[in-house]
Amino acid sequence: MGQRTTEPPISWLMHAALSRPKLISLAAGFTDNASLPVAEARTALNQVLRSPKTGQPALQYGITAGDTTLRQLTAEHLRKLDLGGTPCRRPKNQGRRHAVPPEIYSPERLLIASGSQQLLYMTTEALCDEDDIVLVEDPTYFVYLSILQSRGLRARAVRLERDGLDLAHLEKVLTSLKRRGELPRVKMLYLVSYFQNPTGVTTSFEKKRGILRLLKKFERAAGHPIYLLEDAAYRELCFCPEMKGRDALPRVQAGQQIGPVIAREKSALMVRGAADRVIYAGTFTKPFATGARVGYGVLPEPVFTAVKHIKGNHDFGTANLLQQLFVRALASGIYGRHVARLEKRYAHKARVMKLAIKKHFPRVVEWWEPEGGLYFWARLPRGLQSGVKSKVFSAALKNDVLYVPGEICYADDATRRKPNHEMRISFGNASEKDIREGIKRLGKVLGRFL
Amino acid sequence: MGQRTTEPPISWLMHAALSRPKLISLAAGFTDNASLPVAEARTALNQVLRSPKTGQPALQYGITAGDTTLRQLTAEHLRKLDLGGTPCRRPKNQGRRHAVPPEIYSPERLLIASGSQQLLYMTTEALCDEDDIVLVEDPTYFVYLSILQSRGLRARAVRLERDGLDLAHLEKVLTSLKRRGELPRVKMLYLVSYFQNPTGVTTSFEKKRGILRLLKKFERAAGHPIYLLEDAAYRELCFCPEMKGRDALPRVQAGQQIGPVIAREKSALMVRGAADRVIYAGTFTKPFATGARVGYGVLPEPVFTAVKHIKGNHDFGTANLLQQLFVRALASGIYGRHVARLEKRYAHKARVMKLAIKKHFPRVVEWWEPEGGLYFWARLPRGLQSGVKSKVFSAALKNDVLYVPGEICYADDATRRKPNHEMRISFGNASEKDIREGIKRLGKVLGRFL
Repeated sequence: MGQRTTEPPISWLMHAALSRPKLISLAAGFTDNASLPVAEARTALNQVLRSPKTGQPALQYGITAGDTTLRQLTAEHLRKLDLGGTPCRRPKNQGRRHAVPPEIYSPERLLIASGSQQLLYMTTEALCDEDDIVLVEDPTYFVYLSILQSRGLRARAVRLERDGLDLAHLEKVLTSLKRRGELPRVKMLYLVSYFQNPTGVTTSFEKKRGILRLLKKFERAAGHPIYLLEDAAYRELCFCPEMKGRDALPRVQAGQQIGPVIAREKSALMVRGAADRVIYAGTFTKPFATGARVGYGVLPEPVFTAVKHIKGNHDFGTANLLQQLFVRALASGIYGRHVARLEKRYAHKARVMKLAIKKHFPRVVEWWEPEGGLYFWARLPRGLQSGVKSKVFSAALKNDVLYVPGEICYADDATRRKPNHEMRISFGNASEKDIREGIKRLGKVLGRFL
Repeated sequence: MGQRTTEPPISWLMHAALSRPKLISLAAGFTDNASLPVAEARTALNQVLRSPKTGQPALQYGITAGDTTLRQLTAEHLRKLDLGGTPCRRPKNQGRRHAVPPEIYSPERLLIASGSQQLLYMTTEALCDEDDIVLVEDPTYFVYLSILQSRGLRARAVRLERDGLDLAHLEKVLTSLKRRGELPRVKMLYLVSYFQNPTGVTTSFEKKRGILRLLKKFERAAGHPIYLLEDAAYRELCFCPEMKGRDALPRVQAGQQIGPVIAREKSALMVRGAADRVIYAGTFTKPFATGARVGYGVLPEPVFTAVKHIKGNHDFGTANLLQQLFVRALASGIYGRHVARLEKRYAHKARVMKLAIKKHFPRVVEWWEPEGGLYFWARLPRGLQSGVKSKVFSAALKNDVLYVPGEICYADDATRRKPNHEMRISFGNASEKDIREGIKRLGKVLGRFL
């Protein structure tokens, strides 16, 4: 009886937070409360519900794959992210190198979901049978690990560098799986490609190309396609305008400089000849309103049809009212203007956190500054544990500050020892004051151990 | 690769409908378009988004199990449905027979989902492993059969009478499963208890008690609990006020009178001592706005916790904005007033359909008049097929009228022959004019074959 689905770590963290009212949580991946577009959402919804003609379809069932207009707008939106069209997100010199087959951004390949999370779930459900293997970044998004665990799937972890997966290690992992006859169980690679949760790492386009080349290479031995599931949930939370003309490359403090992060990378859909192996998951939720839960996926056949059927069984299709909200928000420019404002706000909050970390963290703590997303990633000296059962975590909780222990972002993979000396620190939801105070408390705790 | 999840029959029907613009669909389970509460939804959403104080939480993530206030309101709502409180739905003399343990309607046991459909899916996911057996009514809700099929589960069909399951047949099925050593694979019984889809049958409270008694009896041999999943999606679409003082008992035309339908039955939660075996799935969607996708479940432990974890993996929780819409709609009375209006409207549309059927259907066709819900159920003389590949279905389509063939509502169950001479006819979405014209066309087609 569903025993496989165990208590997700995030529930535990939330519980810990609720039981201490003065606690400052730098753990939650919640987005910034004060900047949520209340007036904008009201405007858009009043437009939708202004008359029976527009209102009735929004309150009626829709079709499983999603509203046709929203799928068209989403396809156009995605094409702009990849090929330019808004100044902020124009990829550097990557747009003209080759023509993009028009079918890549076809609304026909787009499926609307209740957040990109649901798309991750349904894709995994469609592609993987029990005991199959999914390749993941090491570390990766811990809720995705929870999906794998609950479905009886195995994860194989691939080392993460400052600009994405370690391709040599990916090849080694695939070779080793092949040698052990396990390649037929490998169905896909899951990649959080922009401002990764938890590390903030952005995968370079070159690495996406390299990943797809390697997966293709091993397909024959696998006996079936190996898909790349690109989770781009944080893509639009980039600090690009703020970075302009300033030091655009984040620095690794007290660690090696491993290479630049390039925020405005193209998606894997743009890798020539590989679109039939890429599943792209995006969301309007994170950069606009997480309470509205509308995400989307671009899926090649036969995955598109399989996921659409699964969606039909889950819920027949995402709430039409929310879809119409995004039709209005996208078409009217409300969405784009909000994202532009939000980028500035997050860039500012990230700067506040950076200054606080510089001031309060012991110098032996290495940390990665993000160019987008919601998270800083900090690494204690090896030997000092940060996990849920560690002294550091207990002391932090006792001092009313919460972070996400790095260990929960690592898959169970017996081929390497699970690191336990890192922390994900979020500036998403906390106020500036709480960011300063929270980092100060955390710094004090770390100082006591270092 | 997800091959198990095949094209659901409903997609095929929708496709058929789209390709003929003049077609009148009496197939779709869509609700009445003209009565959708556009102004009411706008009012409620404007209240939610009136200020940052109420608007921000609605646009932020919530907790996985659902908004606390909505769960409280839902618990109270459900208690009223079972114990009275609104005149229309007070159960007949059933309220005072025994005290209800207060924990049955506790918000702690309530989980909010994206429509009750998602709750059906997640419960099945939590309770059943591949090759397990679920007992279903014969016929039953065909999307639920699609869930079973996609998850590699087997259905065992139990005969349906005019007032619910045939208990003698249920006992026979359980005994036969026990004899063949298959009882350990039986995890639950799925019951659409009010105005069933597709037949309109309402299960009497006595039968719910009988079902739970039988399931309990076979638990020891099964080695685990056998749950009753009560799907009450149509419960609030009852024609009670309209039926008052009139002939409250629907008649079976040209067939035997099999017994009365009692619409205002209590839920299975009220069966004494059995609440730990009942999973109750309800929805605010059908009686208010199907585009808003908010349903709920009452679940005993350990099912509640297992489903909550699954919900966390699917989507972290249902869109908070929609949940807040229902908080306002329930608390302000908007919801209750709309349901009362809707009941009258559906009762009227059902009457329109009844008169048309009386006028146009050949007298040898037996049909069941519903006391609620969205469907009439008609039975052709045995020998005349109504299925997707039948001459009747083709002729209907050629004459631009669509119904749901009864055959798709029957599980694959080798222990009986699958009936193929029935049709589900919906008055939910069609206009009065279309109901009259659609039934006229269908009558003409039937007349040609009979």
